[in-house]
Amino acid sequence: PVNADRIAEDIDALAGITDPGHPWTRRAFSPLFLEGRAYIEARMKAAGLTTRMDAAGNLIGRRAGAKPGLGTILVGSHSDTVPDGGRFDGIAGTIAALEVARSLKDRGIELDHDLEIVDFLAEEVSIFGVSCIGSRGMTGQIPEAWLTRMSGDRTLAQGIAEVGGDPSVLLAQKRPDLVGFLELHIEQGPVLEAENKDVGIVTAIAGITRIEITVEGRADHAGTTPMDRRADALVAASQLVLDIRSRAAEQAKTPGHFAATVGEFRIEPNAANVVPSKVVLLIDGRAEIRSDMEDFLAWIDGEVKTIAADYGVTINPPVRVSDNMPTPGAPVLLETLERACDTVGAKHRRMASGAGHDTAWIAKVAPAAMIFVPCKEGRSHCAEEWAENDDIAMGAAVLFEAVRDMDKN
Amino acid sequence: PVNADRIAEDIDALAGITDPGHPWTRRAFSPLFLEGRAYIEARMKAAGLTTRMDAAGNLIGRRAGAKPGLGTILVGSHSDTVPDGGRFDGIAGTIAALEVARSLKDRGIELDHDLEIVDFLAEEVSIFGVSCIGSRGMTGQIPEAWLTRMSGDRTLAQGIAEVGGDPSVLLAQKRPDLVGFLELHIEQGPVLEAENKDVGIVTAIAGITRIEITVEGRADHAGTTPMDRRADALVAASQLVLDIRSRAAEQAKTPGHFAATVGEFRIEPNAANVVPSKVVLLIDGRAEIRSDMEDFLAWIDGEVKTIAADYGVTINPPVRVSDNMPTPGAPVLLETLERACDTVGAKHRRMASGAGHDTAWIAKVAPAAMIFVPCKEGRSHCAEEWAENDDIAMGAAVLFEAVRDMDKN
Ligand SMILES: NC(=O)NCCC(=O)O
Ligand SMILES: NC(=O)NCCC(=O)O
Repeated sequence: PVNADRIAEDIDALAGITDPGHPWTRRAFSPLFLEGRAYIEARMKAAGLTTRMDAAGNLIGRRAGAKPGLGTILVGSHSDTVPDGGRFDGIAGTIAALEVARSLKDRGIELDHDLEIVDFLAEEVSIFGVSCIGSRGMTGQIPEAWLTRMSGDRTLAQGIAEVGGDPSVLLAQKRPDLVGFLELHIEQGPVLEAENKDVGIVTAIAGITRIEITVEGRADHAGTTPMDRRADALVAASQLVLDIRSRAAEQAKTPGHFAATVGEFRIEPNAANVVPSKVVLLIDGRAEIRSDMEDFLAWIDGEVKTIAADYGVTINPPVRVSDNMPTPGAPVLLETLERACDTVGAKHRRMASGAGHDTAWIAKVAPAAMIFVPCKEGRSHCAEEWAENDDIAMGAAVLFEAVRDMDKN
Repeated sequence: PVNADRIAEDIDALAGITDPGHPWTRRAFSPLFLEGRAYIEARMKAAGLTTRMDAAGNLIGRRAGAKPGLGTILVGSHSDTVPDGGRFDGIAGTIAALEVARSLKDRGIELDHDLEIVDFLAEEVSIFGVSCIGSRGMTGQIPEAWLTRMSGDRTLAQGIAEVGGDPSVLLAQKRPDLVGFLELHIEQGPVLEAENKDVGIVTAIAGITRIEITVEGRADHAGTTPMDRRADALVAASQLVLDIRSRAAEQAKTPGHFAATVGEFRIEPNAANVVPSKVVLLIDGRAEIRSDMEDFLAWIDGEVKTIAADYGVTINPPVRVSDNMPTPGAPVLLETLERACDTVGAKHRRMASGAGHDTAWIAKVAPAAMIFVPCKEGRSHCAEEWAENDDIAMGAAVLFEAVRDMDKN
């Protein structure tokens, strides 16, 4: 029911709006980002949508329904990218949503509900250090303190105003009209490709917990200090990295998605001939089932004590830098999406999302769910990120059918 | 035979020449360094020494001997410091050497040999990225390519000229007149203090070998990539750090000083939600006995292959960034120093130096040896570095006796 060529045309056009030295980068708040949005807005208009910018800087294309006051079906994703990557992450979902509106128009289908296609602002971690600004902002979930976060000499409030939002009313945003939200996204993992499935129906978006650990040893001369008299923070931290990996691998074998990764790792003084005195590391934990994260958190509290004792270093209690609960997809929408898959002949499976998404924020105020389409080797957030256009088109067709189904209920 | 108060006065005076926010820093080539040298030069003059700057930027105070042409006894160390540290590292030896000249003068003792007190330029790794510039430079051991090394907009040649050296004749420096060199230094390790000894007689300065290893994995999404499908460079590198530490601890138990440390360690992309794709680490290896280092090098070549296979990452063959041989102290001088210890009643032991020193460079052209004095808890290269003045004075007395002994032979 959708036009695959039109999807390819738009995704390619957006890919062309990038610094050629850094494919495929359009970071939120940058001139390239605004150029990308100008393209999307023009395409929304061409699809007969009425465009506007909401207070949170979300670009919205609206198609009024036949029965005013019935509520709004929202579909979309984001068009910003991480630095150095992401030809499809967010873009595929934004264009697929637009294609739903176009197909409805092509077929002369009028919905009872209002339909809105959204390009959320700054889903990725932005230059202001925070993410999902648009989806949080649309639903009044931006903490006030964020407005004064700085990037260069701009506050986030100024940044939002510059893209066309209205920070003065941002904190009070509400969307009581939403009857449902759907997002299509690339999986960013290898499962669908490996299992030869067309669509993943996302049962839950894993909770993300970030844990900072500081290992403090003693900076001694690397040449003179006997091996058995050292308090080497790097050695202790290395043991911690290996143990985290083993523990996470064990937890991943039980039901429910689980992962834990040390992605940030910094040593001091980082000098060739000095025994490392300090390591600060950040664990990124993901759990579909909250109790798995609780178990992990309890384990890590004990683990750092064992390592501190074994290696003669000091490790303060792990600091929970952030801790978000898992977000289940709305059960009724999961069924709607499954029916839609069956209608268009998409091979599907239920699966969790290990990654965070705008859907998790909208889900706090309205029924929301998302689908995944396969991506090549699970690669994402890099120049190599790739999704086949036919897979995206299949996902768009699922959205199309699901929206029609939602409209009837 | 020496005046401990005078030593304390000079060391305290130099400690006062520092940026108060960064005790006790006087990095080579800085204005503070030149201020420190102006103080030392004034004290050399007050001790009746004739001062000069040699082509390598070494500050030298000379006391002519009774028998011209017999040769020069050189004693000294360096007055530059590492960033953020070192109240005694180098300074103790420079002032102790000066005190030898003063004591000879006080006692009206005339030597047959010329005596020179030296403050070597830039023993520590300098802003030009290289160390032991003065001791290498005095003896024609500076590689020509070093002269054009940059720091900011200055070449090393310009830096040497600015402190008073003469880069135009630097590469041709020779010191055939040297009959012997002695250096006093703080141990920078915990052994003398732990064993309650006054003096360490340095049998050899360990060879320093630096080995760079690059571990390459794959940057995957930390949220979505299943634990068993990762090529995590940090996990593999952590295993390497632990294995290096175990191996080094084993080798340290056999005769001869041995240590290996991973002091530099950097991960990429170093982002919270990305599986680390790359780790570059630098091993600092020290061996008193060359075959120990050969064994370690052979082991590490095999070890990285094992880890690459076990963790599904790529590790190129380790790169030997630098590789210096151990330098034994001149046996005749070790005996001279032992006699001197016995004369002044210093409790002494033979030991290796795990740290590199100017002595290693002078030893390439003349008989050279060094002594260690205890320092608190082995701490060095930090604000806490401390040596008791009485221990330094005892070491200066040993130098005094040793110089007189050398003069007779
Ligand atoms: N989808 C996605 O990559 N979100 C970024 C946040 C995260 O999951 O790390
Ligand atoms: N003595 C000293 O700290 N030298 C610096 C070079 C080294 O041994 O790492």
